[in-house]
Amino acid sequence: MINKIQSWVEIPENSDFSIYNLPIGIFCENVGVKRAGMALGDFVLDLNAMHEASFFEEIDLPQGIFKKDTLNDYIALGKDITNALRRRVQELMSVGNEEIQGNHEYISHIFKKRNQVQMYMPVKVPNYTDFYSSMEHATNVGTMFRDPDNALLPNWQHIPVGYHGRASSIIPSGMSIHRPKGQRKDPNKDAPEFGPSTRLDFELEMAFITGRATELGQNVPADKAEEFIFGFVLFNDWSARDIQQWEYVPLGPFLAKSFASSISPWIVSIEALEQFRVQGPKQEQEVLPYLKVDGSRNFDINLEVDIKPEGDDATTVCKSNFKYMYWSVNQQLAHQTINGCNLQVGDMYASGTISGPTPDSYGSMLELAWKGTKPLKLANNKSRVFIEDGDTVTMRGYAEKDGVRVGFGEVSTKVLPAI
Amino acid sequence: MINKIQSWVEIPENSDFSIYNLPIGIFCENVGVKRAGMALGDFVLDLNAMHEASFFEEIDLPQGIFKKDTLNDYIALGKDITNALRRRVQELMSVGNEEIQGNHEYISHIFKKRNQVQMYMPVKVPNYTDFYSSMEHATNVGTMFRDPDNALLPNWQHIPVGYHGRASSIIPSGMSIHRPKGQRKDPNKDAPEFGPSTRLDFELEMAFITGRATELGQNVPADKAEEFIFGFVLFNDWSARDIQQWEYVPLGPFLAKSFASSISPWIVSIEALEQFRVQGPKQEQEVLPYLKVDGSRNFDINLEVDIKPEGDDATTVCKSNFKYMYWSVNQQLAHQTINGCNLQVGDMYASGTISGPTPDSYGSMLELAWKGTKPLKLANNKSRVFIEDGDTVTMRGYAEKDGVRVGFGEVSTKVLPAI
Repeated sequence: MINKIQSWVEIPENSDFSIYNLPIGIFCENVGVKRAGMALGDFVLDLNAMHEASFFEEIDLPQGIFKKDTLNDYIALGKDITNALRRRVQELMSVGNEEIQGNHEYISHIFKKRNQVQMYMPVKVPNYTDFYSSMEHATNVGTMFRDPDNALLPNWQHIPVGYHGRASSIIPSGMSIHRPKGQRKDPNKDAPEFGPSTRLDFELEMAFITGRATELGQNVPADKAEEFIFGFVLFNDWSARDIQQWEYVPLGPFLAKSFASSISPWIVSIEALEQFRVQGPKQEQEVLPYLKVDGSRNFDINLEVDIKPEGDDATTVCKSNFKYMYWSVNQQLAHQTINGCNLQVGDMYASGTISGPTPDSYGSMLELAWKGTKPLKLANNKSRVFIEDGDTVTMRGYAEKDGVRVGFGEVSTKVLPAI
Repeated sequence: MINKIQSWVEIPENSDFSIYNLPIGIFCENVGVKRAGMALGDFVLDLNAMHEASFFEEIDLPQGIFKKDTLNDYIALGKDITNALRRRVQELMSVGNEEIQGNHEYISHIFKKRNQVQMYMPVKVPNYTDFYSSMEHATNVGTMFRDPDNALLPNWQHIPVGYHGRASSIIPSGMSIHRPKGQRKDPNKDAPEFGPSTRLDFELEMAFITGRATELGQNVPADKAEEFIFGFVLFNDWSARDIQQWEYVPLGPFLAKSFASSISPWIVSIEALEQFRVQGPKQEQEVLPYLKVDGSRNFDINLEVDIKPEGDDATTVCKSNFKYMYWSVNQQLAHQTINGCNLQVGDMYASGTISGPTPDSYGSMLELAWKGTKPLKLANNKSRVFIEDGDTVTMRGYAEKDGVRVGFGEVSTKVLPAI
């Protein structure tokens, strides 16, 4: 059971940003500089204003730490500091605390309306890895493109398979993207053609962000991995399936992915997700010792995807859950570093498409419309096999238990025509 | 023909760092801070000292631009500035210029002995791509692992195939690495094993560094690509072949590469290589319009690799040339950005293994010892099929024409046992 906390701030029922959450991000008002904030209900709490008003005096924070373009320096201070800060904000916002409550000057400086600020990338991403950790997704893709009887490749149950992705093109929710152009090859033609992708897809993923660096040569043991994880965001790994199919042998996906990946702007700390831990799927195939980890290492986070055609209603096309992941974040980070690869603060590690066991829980259009063969019905007699120009794809996620809700908000991205 | 320039500085014959070169890097003396220098003969010219002594007054340089940990901010100033700076240093060091010559105070502040300074990473690398652009290398690998009659995959002559690599583990020459550990699978066994790699390999490559950023959605046309290239370094793409073979399907190389890549610390500007341009191999297969580019887009740069076992003599095991690349740097950058992927200043784009047409020009142990079947003879009756603990691998590169030499120095890395 959870210790119930009431806030003196009015927070809408079912808000993702309850007093139990307090995710951190980078925001800006119309006039002003980028700075750090925490989401609470319909507000953003200006952490820089709170710091300047001396509300964090008992926490060892450098001057100006919240008045930066990214959170990397703040996150690098370590969990002792960042957890103390989150607890302190929770205390200040709790019923019974009157340090801010009732003081109109403080309130006007600290509370910003969330729908009136612009959100930015919360971190500068030094390195980005995309895993492939949902067995349902890997099985679906293997069934479609290889052999239904041997859909999983031999290494899949031994290795949290992953690849390095492009860090520069990770963008925050709200920024539109252009349909990418590239090479694709019709199997019935001799040569590839060039043009805008005809099979643009989303991939429903989550990503964790590292809060501690390691030295080259060091590895992170699986049972210590969470100490290196600051928090999580929703992650849309945009994919151009036609480009991918032609380019990906033998070195993996490249331009099919590097045109954009979008994230939700609020980083939910791993500590805020503590009460939503669950056991992951049983790993029938025994894993090597460096990948072994006990306990409840998955998180029960409800996920959904909407498609909204231009000027039309949105339709929810997928409902999945982060708990389906076969490989846990602990195993992913242990694997990433077992060869001595060094971590940096702000690195992003995406899960891979999170598909569940039922067809309505598949995390990509490729799977939902089964390689274009089963068009997906949308509202108002529309249908889709892939994403069309003008469509807005929105992913949402939240955990809920015993009346406590901790959510991620959304990552929402509109697709514009190719340039 | 080249305008001959004499320097008043004594430069050893055959020095890589002639007055025509003036590559830039980040150095540090025993005591002192990291700062920018240019290599000239056996000296490093302290650019910060020159700036502070007002030798660059006619160039629009921010204060302290050479007193930073990396060159990213300097490179971002653009070619007008960086080329003017290189020309100005060339002028100051030329016979007839007496602004510094003969002034002992200036000389003691500006000239540092190259063998007495420590070199560091010249840039912070925001993004790293590794291409696969030597036809000889791709053919050799395809012959060994797939089908000798269809060694090149169908996409290879249409796409400058590449993948994203790990930026955090790129290190400068002189830093030792530990043999990586990981999973490998014996085809005769049911399950993978874990341990130090038994097939550690180098890959002889070169890399270019970008000097200009682009916005997401923009692409760089092939005939404009060189405007975005600041310069080149030697690049050793360390590879663990046993790990690679087991992990790489279907998403490409990951831990087989991410434990380390090493580079030479001096960035040779693309302008210093102007006189060494040559035509690349003819592309018999017509490429798509966005990859077409005229003129001499390859560079005639002699490359070689030495292996030096611990306490023993070095043996040159490979002599190759950058001119063998099938895909030019222009084509690589045009391809990288055709989907709208944005560039950042300091990005590194490696060529892929540079193998030539003859067996002694192959750029990896995998090819030189043909998958372990043809042990390579070293000095003093030693031999190698892959790299052993205690071995130091050194790569060197230089261009030479009409008595003018422009070289890269070396990237030298010692392999220590697994931790």
